[in-house]
Amino acid sequence: MSTLYEQLADALAQRIHEGNLQPGERLPSVRQACAQAQVSPATVFQAYDLLETRGLIEARPRSGFYVRRTPQALRQPALPATARRESTPVAISELVFEVLSSTRDKEVVPLGSAFPSPTLFPLERLARDGARAMRQLAPLALTTELTTGNARLREAVRARCVRHGLRVSAQEPVITNGAMEALNLSLQAVTQPGDVVAVEAPTFYAALQALERLHLRAVEVPTDPQLGVDPDALAEVLQRHHVAACWLMPNFQNPLGALMPHARKQAVMRTLQQAGTPVVEDDVYGELHHGSERPLPLKAFDTEGQVLYCSSFSKCLAPGYRVGWALPGRHSHAVQKLKMMSSLATSVPSQLALAEYLEEGGYDRHLRQLRKTLADSLHQLRTAVLKHFPKGTRVSRPAGGYFLWVQLPDGVDTLALHRQALAQGISTAPGALFSADQRFRSALRLNGGHPHDARVLAAVKVLGRLAGKT
Amino acid sequence: MSTLYEQLADALAQRIHEGNLQPGERLPSVRQACAQAQVSPATVFQAYDLLETRGLIEARPRSGFYVRRTPQALRQPALPATARRESTPVAISELVFEVLSSTRDKEVVPLGSAFPSPTLFPLERLARDGARAMRQLAPLALTTELTTGNARLREAVRARCVRHGLRVSAQEPVITNGAMEALNLSLQAVTQPGDVVAVEAPTFYAALQALERLHLRAVEVPTDPQLGVDPDALAEVLQRHHVAACWLMPNFQNPLGALMPHARKQAVMRTLQQAGTPVVEDDVYGELHHGSERPLPLKAFDTEGQVLYCSSFSKCLAPGYRVGWALPGRHSHAVQKLKMMSSLATSVPSQLALAEYLEEGGYDRHLRQLRKTLADSLHQLRTAVLKHFPKGTRVSRPAGGYFLWVQLPDGVDTLALHRQALAQGISTAPGALFSADQRFRSALRLNGGHPHDARVLAAVKVLGRLAGKT
Repeated sequence: MSTLYEQLADALAQRIHEGNLQPGERLPSVRQACAQAQVSPATVFQAYDLLETRGLIEARPRSGFYVRRTPQALRQPALPATARRESTPVAISELVFEVLSSTRDKEVVPLGSAFPSPTLFPLERLARDGARAMRQLAPLALTTELTTGNARLREAVRARCVRHGLRVSAQEPVITNGAMEALNLSLQAVTQPGDVVAVEAPTFYAALQALERLHLRAVEVPTDPQLGVDPDALAEVLQRHHVAACWLMPNFQNPLGALMPHARKQAVMRTLQQAGTPVVEDDVYGELHHGSERPLPLKAFDTEGQVLYCSSFSKCLAPGYRVGWALPGRHSHAVQKLKMMSSLATSVPSQLALAEYLEEGGYDRHLRQLRKTLADSLHQLRTAVLKHFPKGTRVSRPAGGYFLWVQLPDGVDTLALHRQALAQGISTAPGALFSADQRFRSALRLNGGHPHDARVLAAVKVLGRLAGKT
Repeated sequence: MSTLYEQLADALAQRIHEGNLQPGERLPSVRQACAQAQVSPATVFQAYDLLETRGLIEARPRSGFYVRRTPQALRQPALPATARRESTPVAISELVFEVLSSTRDKEVVPLGSAFPSPTLFPLERLARDGARAMRQLAPLALTTELTTGNARLREAVRARCVRHGLRVSAQEPVITNGAMEALNLSLQAVTQPGDVVAVEAPTFYAALQALERLHLRAVEVPTDPQLGVDPDALAEVLQRHHVAACWLMPNFQNPLGALMPHARKQAVMRTLQQAGTPVVEDDVYGELHHGSERPLPLKAFDTEGQVLYCSSFSKCLAPGYRVGWALPGRHSHAVQKLKMMSSLATSVPSQLALAEYLEEGGYDRHLRQLRKTLADSLHQLRTAVLKHFPKGTRVSRPAGGYFLWVQLPDGVDTLALHRQALAQGISTAPGALFSADQRFRSALRLNGGHPHDARVLAAVKVLGRLAGKT
């Protein structure tokens, strides 16, 4: 469990992130805070100290604590242009392949990577757990527990999702080869080649790749860097196009980090329900909230079984194990069939290691530590970017996950920047990856999930210098 | 290493399987055999004993040893009808899903399963190896060795394939989530929705499922139960249709068990080369030869890089680990891209367990034992089927793998038989699974890869009785 002062700090940080406490606004006095939160003055002081360290508030001598004002240059990225009127075919994979291949080299500073540092995970314990579970496994389970996955792991996943506000039956979870497979199978389950799929703008490149692979067309919906997809724009798109499915990431969207507020999720779900449109929901960052509460998935508001929820352990617990899951609602049969047809089953040793780990306990403790580490390293990266990038740069301020979305001044070509930086041993994820028509040419995604050491700091300085030159 | 007498027996068994020694033909006398093989009389006696046990030869008092004559009823299944003139869309997955789901229950006798008994594999050692390798792994490898797979395993796979007569570069192997994913990615790499794909008749249902999932059309090529696909029929199909790709299984074809002879592979490869048609080659049973020599894959005859070779460890070493590979020849880039797009990477703990196992040694010893066990259990199953199934039943006589293809008298509906048998706790794989237009309605595939115990024998008797009634 986190301590009292950490809980208090988290609650206040969330209010700041959600805009309930505005920049420049004064925080409650220590006395007021003691009364409100029913804690001691020492606890309030510690909480305020922590928030100051995290760069969220500042002390003004003899006046109290204030939410830090963000200078003009430090503002959030702007909303993208309105939705395009046409859907577009997708051909992004060659570029994604080039960029991702470049991040594989261990010597390259992984600011372009999609994974947090693997040093943050309990790999030793997972290896031990996996070996123990494999030794105790009845061999027959290797061939009888095929398509939907190991029974223990399915139950552990179900129980956890129920805690997160979802109604999940024992039969619903389909264990997959990472969230990537879950997302791909889910999308295929509700589309045919040539169909139109609504995605966020910018959107995670894997969504675009999935569309490309399945011969689908994209229509991009404007997405607010703080609040997620725009419900009105989504409604308009659903009216104008025959949309076969949506692909959304309401919690800590990749690349923006946007967290869709509760009410907005309800509005989006209402719209989708009226249209009867299936939704593939990617929730892989849902567990990585920096505030104290785990945000609800969109599926929590789904009464019709039209959300195909997908997540994984790859970003939270076990990178490289390639274990994810789908909760496909009323499309369960179709997803199970596709799983059987495309990869038959998911690796049993990996599944067992995770089942054993989850049953043994300690996952929540690990997650609390991980969230803090990621919030801190992301904050430090943000501070460094704001300091070293050219004037006019706008940087997202995510309330979860570990990505920064950096909007450079117009005219900066981040694909060129990516290639220049790579020549100096630094990877980035250029904005061109995140849209079917390669908007966002002057934006880039940076990974704040690695310890903010001298190497990362030096890389940020190099990036800033390169960005200033172009 | 197998003993001398086992080697001699294997060599003779292979000659029998290949038809070089005909039913009714006399084997060399013990003196002749001693001279030919440069071994002692005791070794020849032991070898002949073993062949007699396996049911391949019989002793005739005061005359010598003879290849067993196969009575009329025990003959090989007949060749299927000539190729259909039209390609057909595929809609087999619902039936496959129903049948495979039924085999999952541990209480059901798994004659319909596609896996040999998992008790035949070194699971304890793999679990230990995997845990050791994971503890020694540098965490960064979890996120840098992504799409193509673990470097140690890729090298081990490459080295082994080179031993099997393939030219493989260090960059070619792509580690996949079982052969199933390798096959799916390979097929997708060389086709577009609507394309025509040539498959064997009968063919492995996963090939049909892959076609269905990718919206492809099937054209079925007659396939000899002993010799594999007919090169002339294949050439005709390639002339008549615009075939985007072939999917072939030249070694111990599933379900027939056919082993395409060397010269036939050359002929098939020549035909495909002239047409420039890419071939997806499924070689998952290549290691499970009952004779002494590992048959060459089709890819060994490929000079143009047009074979996309696929295999796995699931049937030979590590069921449930879901580790396979593709050697996609000149389609390597396309397959790597698709792997990244559809599942990103393969489970690292599974890959490491296999890498560690293969480097440590002992795989060949394990395989020798496994081959013998499977040859014996398959032979016993065959004997039981011949004894208990109705008159007019024809049964394949495979020289490798562990499947029997059983052709019941015309009029027996094996799908109905499957459902009746299932009600009595016995699964089968009805012939309808193995063709897009559900030919082979009176055939079924039985799994001889489980110890031929009383339970299996009782199941065969029940099946025979049910088959006789319909």
